[in-house]
Amino acid sequence: MKRMNRKKIREILNKNKEEVEILVMGWVRTRRDSKGGFSFLEINDGSCFKNLQVIVDHNIDSFELNSGKLHTGSCARVIGKLVQSPGKGQSVELQAKIVEVYGEADPDHYPLQKKHHSFEFLREIAHLRPRTNTFGAVMRVRNRLSYSIHNFFQERGFLYLHTPIITTNDCEGAGEMFQVTTLNSDSLRGIDGEVDYSQDFFGEKTGLTVSGQLEGEV
Amino acid sequence: MKRMNRKKIREILNKNKEEVEILVMGWVRTRRDSKGGFSFLEINDGSCFKNLQVIVDHNIDSFELNSGKLHTGSCARVIGKLVQSPGKGQSVELQAKIVEVYGEADPDHYPLQKKHHSFEFLREIAHLRPRTNTFGAVMRVRNRLSYSIHNFFQERGFLYLHTPIITTNDCEGAGEMFQVTTLNSDSLRGIDGEVDYSQDFFGEKTGLTVSGQLEGEV
Repeated sequence: MKRMNRKKIREILNKNKEEVEILVMGWVRTRRDSKGGFSFLEINDGSCFKNLQVIVDHNIDSFELNSGKLHTGSCARVIGKLVQSPGKGQSVELQAKIVEVYGEADPDHYPLQKKHHSFEFLREIAHLRPRTNTFGAVMRVRNRLSYSIHNFFQERGFLYLHTPIITTNDCEGAGEMFQVTTLNSDSLRGIDGEVDYSQDFFGEKTGLTVSGQLEGEV
Repeated sequence: MKRMNRKKIREILNKNKEEVEILVMGWVRTRRDSKGGFSFLEINDGSCFKNLQVIVDHNIDSFELNSGKLHTGSCARVIGKLVQSPGKGQSVELQAKIVEVYGEADPDHYPLQKKHHSFEFLREIAHLRPRTNTFGAVMRVRNRLSYSIHNFFQERGFLYLHTPIITTNDCEGAGEMFQVTTLNSDSLRGIDGEVDYSQDFFGEKTGLTVSGQLEGEV
């Protein structure tokens, strides 16, 4: 197979122009099989919020080979022709010539499926949350905000600095702190007397800081 | 006194132009008294690495009032005339008309003085370190690197995201972790049996993450 450069979906949708042959890689968000002998895949590669619609003719060789592995969450590589879409909801769509699956996502075990997932459920699979629309959108907004704030202050002559995260202070007596320790809580039990913090990593009782205010003001 | 806008030292040194009257605020880095009836102050306001040299005639009213408080580390407000400097080491200097001290720094107690401080000593006063030349320079380089890296990735379509800091995983069995807990280590002592982590803040044994790799790869 000849070497091709991968196109990001963001670029494809921004350009919105037909192409004789392009290569797209991403995760299958949904798959819908049509009785007309076609499958519709929604592919997302993380480059933007939107998916690219891919039409797979059931007669192409690689469909037969990979159909059983093309599920929500599986990782695919598609080569095809980019055409104006007759359907609603997208301007261009990809007519697949070759579909390959790199990573499978068994629908019996992969937790993100084409249905509504509650936030409570997503909290249990926090590492996969960014693949959902809601968290993908939240992450994109956070990214934009972080960068805009960084720009805003840099342009006005402020410095971005990293204040200590682990501290022995409780800032303004903020009360309860998250203690940070390498001492083994389990082995502390059953021993009488004071805890010997000189044996702890920093040689003192330390906690997560509650504020970088002191450093900011100095 | 009429209302004046404060000028940042960075701007003054960049412009490098004489001014009839300007207002500068900052911390005194050094003070040197001349037998000619003048004092030389080096003022830094954090806007840049360099200081502004201020010449104070001992005959101005406010010098008499504030002389006893003008020490290394004290916080001052100076109004004066900006002129080309005849001395070496600076292009412009400020001839003070009014000097006021807002915050004193008793030389008997303020730890940063005009002398060499070892890194070991500075570690003990970590909150004041950024006021030294070395740490000010380190902070400025870090700031520039952080912003450049942020720009680099944003321009190439990457997203800046915040991966979890507190986790129940130890990434790839990285070994010892910093445990994060709100359980009181001291009160754990003397109690037999297993630690009941359901009583801990997150209801589980948690630690500082050693890597955001998992989230990065998803």
